[in-house]
Amino acid sequence: MHNPKTARALAAAAFMLAAPAAMAQTTTLAPRDVPAKTIPVPDDVSPQLQAVIAAPPTAGWNTPPTTPQGWQQLANSEATAAAPMVAGMAQRLHVKITQGKIDGVKVYYVTPESIPARNAKRVLIHFHGGCYVLNPAAAALPEAVLMAGIGHMRVISVDYRMPPTAYYPAALDDAMTVYKAELKTTNPKDIGVFGSSAGGALTLELMLQAKQEHLPMPGAIAVGTPMADLVDQGDSAQTNALVDNVLVSPNGFCQAAAVFYAHGHSLVDPMLSPLNGDFHGFPPAILTTGTRDLLLSNTVRTHQKLLQSGVTADLLVFEGMSHAQFTFDDRIPEDQQAFTEISAFLDKHLGH
Amino acid sequence: MHNPKTARALAAAAFMLAAPAAMAQTTTLAPRDVPAKTIPVPDDVSPQLQAVIAAPPTAGWNTPPTTPQGWQQLANSEATAAAPMVAGMAQRLHVKITQGKIDGVKVYYVTPESIPARNAKRVLIHFHGGCYVLNPAAAALPEAVLMAGIGHMRVISVDYRMPPTAYYPAALDDAMTVYKAELKTTNPKDIGVFGSSAGGALTLELMLQAKQEHLPMPGAIAVGTPMADLVDQGDSAQTNALVDNVLVSPNGFCQAAAVFYAHGHSLVDPMLSPLNGDFHGFPPAILTTGTRDLLLSNTVRTHQKLLQSGVTADLLVFEGMSHAQFTFDDRIPEDQQAFTEISAFLDKHLGH
Repeated sequence: MHNPKTARALAAAAFMLAAPAAMAQTTTLAPRDVPAKTIPVPDDVSPQLQAVIAAPPTAGWNTPPTTPQGWQQLANSEATAAAPMVAGMAQRLHVKITQGKIDGVKVYYVTPESIPARNAKRVLIHFHGGCYVLNPAAAALPEAVLMAGIGHMRVISVDYRMPPTAYYPAALDDAMTVYKAELKTTNPKDIGVFGSSAGGALTLELMLQAKQEHLPMPGAIAVGTPMADLVDQGDSAQTNALVDNVLVSPNGFCQAAAVFYAHGHSLVDPMLSPLNGDFHGFPPAILTTGTRDLLLSNTVRTHQKLLQSGVTADLLVFEGMSHAQFTFDDRIPEDQQAFTEISAFLDKHLGH
Repeated sequence: MHNPKTARALAAAAFMLAAPAAMAQTTTLAPRDVPAKTIPVPDDVSPQLQAVIAAPPTAGWNTPPTTPQGWQQLANSEATAAAPMVAGMAQRLHVKITQGKIDGVKVYYVTPESIPARNAKRVLIHFHGGCYVLNPAAAALPEAVLMAGIGHMRVISVDYRMPPTAYYPAALDDAMTVYKAELKTTNPKDIGVFGSSAGGALTLELMLQAKQEHLPMPGAIAVGTPMADLVDQGDSAQTNALVDNVLVSPNGFCQAAAVFYAHGHSLVDPMLSPLNGDFHGFPPAILTTGTRDLLLSNTVRTHQKLLQSGVTADLLVFEGMSHAQFTFDDRIPEDQQAFTEISAFLDKHLGH
């Protein structure tokens, strides 16, 4: 026989599936205790993505550098390691990379070998991720190469100044310099702006700054898993802690790097936590994240705030992906898919 | 001094933030060990949603009924408990509820007191959630009331047959009966179909079945956190296990109920796991889930498959929400927001 006590207990709670939730009058909100678990690599993604998901958490995630020299050394070693990988991506995706400067700001021109007529006048400005401190030089470029190669649009990737060379607001200043320079030669509607992680935050910050300076908005933006709130990293920073194998923890190297960049400036400032800014008047935006992303919450919070501000905003969430893994490698089918969808959105909303 | 060994280890891994992932040639894919943790109630949602998030996991989630009588008793007790709550929602949202039958299928007519002219010819068909076994009668209606009240459109909520009265494919048969009846009087473009959980799956299954029978597609669909794959519940079924306080576990009452409904039929059949079906030709779709939802993955997998099938598809993900909590209560501001956004999507894509 069925146990009526169990049935009643289940009834009371399973009912929640579709019925009004009790408006608890509790004054203390109980946290959720989640036991230890072992999570298998999902079998509903490509073998290439499975390998990425199975990789161990970022080594040293909780022992970040503690000196300016340590950060500099880390950033430099990244750039050295990245160069051959970026060269391979560029070759496979038929993209050329050259260096230059725009009004004193170092940039990379990431240019598809063939550009269709509809993209002839269009240009995308890219800000790399890396917590405002990491991924200088070639390490900045995988996402730019994916976009140029798959979207067949010209990309200018901004190699913005970073600590310990320069602190907040140097990255945003460099972003603005390049945006203003492009506005002199290009119809704003033909300009797209994109980036992930710190680059996603810089994309949002650039919109806020451009509004303040009464500059026109670009035609569209693509915001990957933005570091949109340095004070409240969102619920997924807890639920996906030690599940995400890139950022790993809200108290890890990335937060330490952002604080290093802020250099004492208040983290609640919308120019460091753009989720605190006013999104009204922003151009159409597409946001991308993954189910294991530590910043899943801040991505969906940004999406919701855009929608509530009357902005056209699309959201993509990729199965099993940790932070920014959709930007990693053109050989991952899901990464190809992400940039196919992102460039379709940009194509739809940029000027023709 | 900074420890160079730590720096090197961090360099190798933090590099992954933007660089190509190593294509590991491993044959075994290491699972992720996640230690026990205590997750606070997020402070970036409304107090009403905080109360829902703080609620304990569904009582008896892992001790579902084991007899047909047990399931029946549970479902009946839900319906009894739901009635006054639904009445309150209907009153607050100015919605009238009447019972009826369409070609022998029990339905509820959920009708806004005032219907704007643009919605005069439109009708929405609703399938409730509850794992194909729960939420009969009034327990089916909160989502229908939210949609009618916030979207100002007429809703027909199908009180489809459930076990132990009738097993697979009874629910889908009843869904088809109502859809075919509406097609006789209404332009297909003026028909919307929606539902969450099992109701989201039934919405997708109805599209597959309608295609098979060469019936026209409706104008748009709204698919809430669908039980899209009963065999592979997706990565979030692991990552959000015991984080989601509604479904709680992929091995809990909901899977037991679905198996009870399937009644020996293969769970891989697209009419039970619609993610295995062909989505080409589907109407515009909006999908909704939450960051703590056990079916976050299956929602985003469905979204991606729709996009890859050339279907216009939007995705909404709500901060901190477990399974289907956006359908719970009109007094939760985020639930209002969800149905504001869902009805805006339907309004955009249904016939005018």
